[in-house]
Amino acid sequence: MTDVKHMKWWGWGDEGVGFHWEDKPGFASFVQYAVGLDLHTAKPASPPKLGDLTIPKSVATAAFLKTLAGVVGADDVRTDDLERVVHVYGKSFRDLARIRANVVKRYPDVVVYPDDEAEVQKIVDAAIAADAVLIPFGGGSNIAGSLEPRESEKRAIVSLDLGRLNKVLDIDDAAQTARIQAGALGPDLEAQLQAKGYTIGHFPDSFNHSTIGGWVATRSSGAQSDRFGDISQIARGMRVARPGGTLVLRSLPSTSTGPSVREMILGSEGRLGVITEVTAQVRRVAEVREVQAYFFPNFATGLKAIQEISESDAHPSITRISDGRETGFSLATSKERHGLDKFLAGTVLPTLMKSKGWAKQPGGLENIALSFIGFEGTKAGTKFSKAIVDKIVKKHNGMGVGTGPGVLFDQKKFDTPYLRDFLLDRGAVGDVSETAAPWSKLQGVYDNTIAAAEKAYESIGIKGWIMAHQSHSYASGACLYFTFAFVGGKDMIAEYNVVKAAIQQSFIDNGATLSHHHGVGVEHSPWMEQDISAQGVAVMKGLFASTDPKSNLNPGKILPVGGEPLGGTAAKAAPAKKAPAKTASKAPAKAAAQAAPTTKAPATR
Amino acid sequence: MTDVKHMKWWGWGDEGVGFHWEDKPGFASFVQYAVGLDLHTAKPASPPKLGDLTIPKSVATAAFLKTLAGVVGADDVRTDDLERVVHVYGKSFRDLARIRANVVKRYPDVVVYPDDEAEVQKIVDAAIAADAVLIPFGGGSNIAGSLEPRESEKRAIVSLDLGRLNKVLDIDDAAQTARIQAGALGPDLEAQLQAKGYTIGHFPDSFNHSTIGGWVATRSSGAQSDRFGDISQIARGMRVARPGGTLVLRSLPSTSTGPSVREMILGSEGRLGVITEVTAQVRRVAEVREVQAYFFPNFATGLKAIQEISESDAHPSITRISDGRETGFSLATSKERHGLDKFLAGTVLPTLMKSKGWAKQPGGLENIALSFIGFEGTKAGTKFSKAIVDKIVKKHNGMGVGTGPGVLFDQKKFDTPYLRDFLLDRGAVGDVSETAAPWSKLQGVYDNTIAAAEKAYESIGIKGWIMAHQSHSYASGACLYFTFAFVGGKDMIAEYNVVKAAIQQSFIDNGATLSHHHGVGVEHSPWMEQDISAQGVAVMKGLFASTDPKSNLNPGKILPVGGEPLGGTAAKAAPAKKAPAKTASKAPAKAAAQAAPTTKAPATR
Repeated sequence: MTDVKHMKWWGWGDEGVGFHWEDKPGFASFVQYAVGLDLHTAKPASPPKLGDLTIPKSVATAAFLKTLAGVVGADDVRTDDLERVVHVYGKSFRDLARIRANVVKRYPDVVVYPDDEAEVQKIVDAAIAADAVLIPFGGGSNIAGSLEPRESEKRAIVSLDLGRLNKVLDIDDAAQTARIQAGALGPDLEAQLQAKGYTIGHFPDSFNHSTIGGWVATRSSGAQSDRFGDISQIARGMRVARPGGTLVLRSLPSTSTGPSVREMILGSEGRLGVITEVTAQVRRVAEVREVQAYFFPNFATGLKAIQEISESDAHPSITRISDGRETGFSLATSKERHGLDKFLAGTVLPTLMKSKGWAKQPGGLENIALSFIGFEGTKAGTKFSKAIVDKIVKKHNGMGVGTGPGVLFDQKKFDTPYLRDFLLDRGAVGDVSETAAPWSKLQGVYDNTIAAAEKAYESIGIKGWIMAHQSHSYASGACLYFTFAFVGGKDMIAEYNVVKAAIQQSFIDNGATLSHHHGVGVEHSPWMEQDISAQGVAVMKGLFASTDPKSNLNPGKILPVGGEPLGGTAAKAAPAKKAPAKTASKAPAKAAAQAAPTTKAPATR
Repeated sequence: MTDVKHMKWWGWGDEGVGFHWEDKPGFASFVQYAVGLDLHTAKPASPPKLGDLTIPKSVATAAFLKTLAGVVGADDVRTDDLERVVHVYGKSFRDLARIRANVVKRYPDVVVYPDDEAEVQKIVDAAIAADAVLIPFGGGSNIAGSLEPRESEKRAIVSLDLGRLNKVLDIDDAAQTARIQAGALGPDLEAQLQAKGYTIGHFPDSFNHSTIGGWVATRSSGAQSDRFGDISQIARGMRVARPGGTLVLRSLPSTSTGPSVREMILGSEGRLGVITEVTAQVRRVAEVREVQAYFFPNFATGLKAIQEISESDAHPSITRISDGRETGFSLATSKERHGLDKFLAGTVLPTLMKSKGWAKQPGGLENIALSFIGFEGTKAGTKFSKAIVDKIVKKHNGMGVGTGPGVLFDQKKFDTPYLRDFLLDRGAVGDVSETAAPWSKLQGVYDNTIAAAEKAYESIGIKGWIMAHQSHSYASGACLYFTFAFVGGKDMIAEYNVVKAAIQQSFIDNGATLSHHHGVGVEHSPWMEQDISAQGVAVMKGLFASTDPKSNLNPGKILPVGGEPLGGTAAKAAPAKKAPAKTASKAPAKAAAQAAPTTKAPATR
């Protein structure tokens, strides 16, 4: 029987698991300020009951269900409505809103719960033999539309839930690698590792509800990536159930054996098969782990400091800085003290900030930026790194405020995913969009994306909110993570699409990628050609077409199948304009060498 | 006209450019000891003159040559014998020996020298239109058979020499990235970078004769990879001329846009198109650069120390340790003092080593292992790292001997590639084979590979030599680099194949990969299925087949085309036995989860 832990959260409306605004004293006034929603008067709408939804009959044939039951047992082949609804989507605003609006046309026809890799392999082969569609399901926390069935799909759709494959199989103490089953959720695998003195060192916001298989399938990145790397570096070995057999990539530190199949599985979102096992780089639990907080007069200054830290001899585990808006949000919703004034009250901080002239800068103290820098390792190593960081912070007119506010970081980390449901209950939209760009372009990406979102809000006549932070530093650049919210008008899904499309287009136009760690799914695929060029899309399409000729493996994700337009048949957030011609018109030769201006804008669907 | 620098070296027999054994006083006695060759009496054989070679007539049609001349100009379309011979192969023993033996059946039919990316694109499109075969040529230093034409090829073969694309186009100072044309040789691009205060930080042994495009195409790794990463991390953006258009991957610090096309181009050896430009992570020239030398009683102990260093807070740029044999070789051939005894003479080292009991260990002082650890960065950072390294060395009974012997490292770095020609002139075979494995398996890979090579020598009744070093440390493991040599008997190519195959098979059998940084070509492809599993090969084959349906792009490299056996039609070093069944027989369930035992041994060709 179904006993996977994540089921609880997915019984939607179960707000109790997650977000309690009453526990966050400044939250209500912040929401009022940001999007004009009065939480004290807003009556929460009840999400629909299961019986309210229009769920078409499963098209899985009795023969196919019997075959599946022969593999996993009849109890673990599920066609009931709850299972089908729980597995239809991920957890983005679009996912939740469409279920609530009862506009979902296509649900998986059957959900199966294999116990081990051998059963997964048999399900894959059975699905291919029956010409069924297979969608692997890990924690279901995806927000890019990587799980949703194509509306046009006529064949039986199998949702393959990997929740039972949740064990750390063994640990290589010398290589510090662990063989972990793909369906293991963050907390489960971390508990098993910690029991042996290790940590995974990968903590995405979705940690509580995402699996290592999902991390690999979407190229996830976690809070401590500065030190431990993205999942693309952490995942050394893999096993993938493919039609006809299991693909086995042994755990190797590095290899020079042609185009990297490992890096093809990474980010493949089920299109190359079902990931069953990952051999991950793990780390011995560190002597010291601390998150230091710093304030900068504003985001631009802090960003320069972070860049200098990333170039320095310091090796922090986390580098992050919030813009003025997100800083305000963080302080307003801290459990301890809420609101900037109250946060600062009784401390020397206001005096210090004023003495540094921060109150007199444009925007005043509203623009101050809160930064978290994490240190992890030996006492000597963290001390060495921290001394370098402190010096750089000082040089950039920032100030350290100790580890106290660091609790804000840990406290909020895994909280935000629940916020979408909470807001939706009150008619409001909240979601996130993130990217990465070279250091030279990061400030431009930030400025222009804020402007693009505000212009989008204006175009639909809605008071909207957008805030951002930088995180995940690399030698050549970093990630920018935007959170946006607004109170829905006539058609909140359409409104969301306008805002989201404006943000994504701004990423591309300003030299950033369409996603740093959330994957592509169907929501980002309209921009694939603008990101990796038409030839890049052609190569990737060729890979999918040749390895899955009948499109049985999660078809339409990342790229559409056959002649379908980019973005597939379901996504509505799409580029509203052609690829920018500005670089081409300025200096044709140079631009041709730098940009991908020959790429036509994909069809708007 | 042809003026690319590497031409000089490739006029074979031009020994003067490279290796002078008379300058290395201990070299002759070392060679006598290792492979029984007396350099004082050995008369160097003259390599064949160009006129001695049987070079079939070019099959390129006049119409096709005219088309090419229309792109690059008639002077840069070359069909003369010298150009065709220079471009037929790389620089492995097999390559040189086959030309010397005049057994080469197939030469490129035409060599073209484009001036820029636009010309490269036109050549690619013209080759596809004419159903010709295209082989990109960078520095020509490949030793895996990545350049050789298939013997069975009936179509016209174009060698596309990228030597004219040798410029650093521009530098992004904030992102510290440089746009570099693919044909730029190591010294050329480094000089252009150094003029602006930057370094590429990538120094493979082939540096003087290899290009950044070649590094990317073969997944190269350089001496300072511990700090700066392999080329797979350094190469952030790429441009690739493909049939129908240029693939453009913008320079991004990280991205989550599906299977990585960037990581497909990496290691693609021309099979996905012609790399024309790379945006590389560069670094500001460091305040401190030093290579410290250490001695350990033996290789096994030193390897443990290196592993501990890689886990520590130290961040060296180079970690390397030679086994006893290579240590002997290094000391024997040092310019300053030659031979262990002479190296140690007049120093306190012998007394110190004896006081540590090294003379009494099995093998005595013959087993001592020389290690080089490189430090690069700020004064404070390198000091911090060195203090940690020194402590770990001491703990493992090693001793530091300062930066003096570090000159050995720099002195030898780019020397060895010339050794093959030198040895061949005297009837001896010398080549290298390298791999990577988890720390837990490294000692086993070393022991069993030495044993496998010695068994192979015994089987062919030849006194052979093999020595090794570890280099390139990662969190989970490291690279092992073997050098082997022997005096040829009846058929030195056949003898080479026996030894090389024994070494490669040992890598696979002991949990290592078939190559860490030399690529696959045709020489390593017979083991591809054992390395990445049958399904891995199927996925990669699908990628090539779908993106190059008529096999025009360097066909047969990495994997054969169509139904050809692994290893193609030319390679003779191939697995002599089936994949090991030992793990499967011991503990079937566990082994099935760990190994790739379903993989059948590839056909022996």
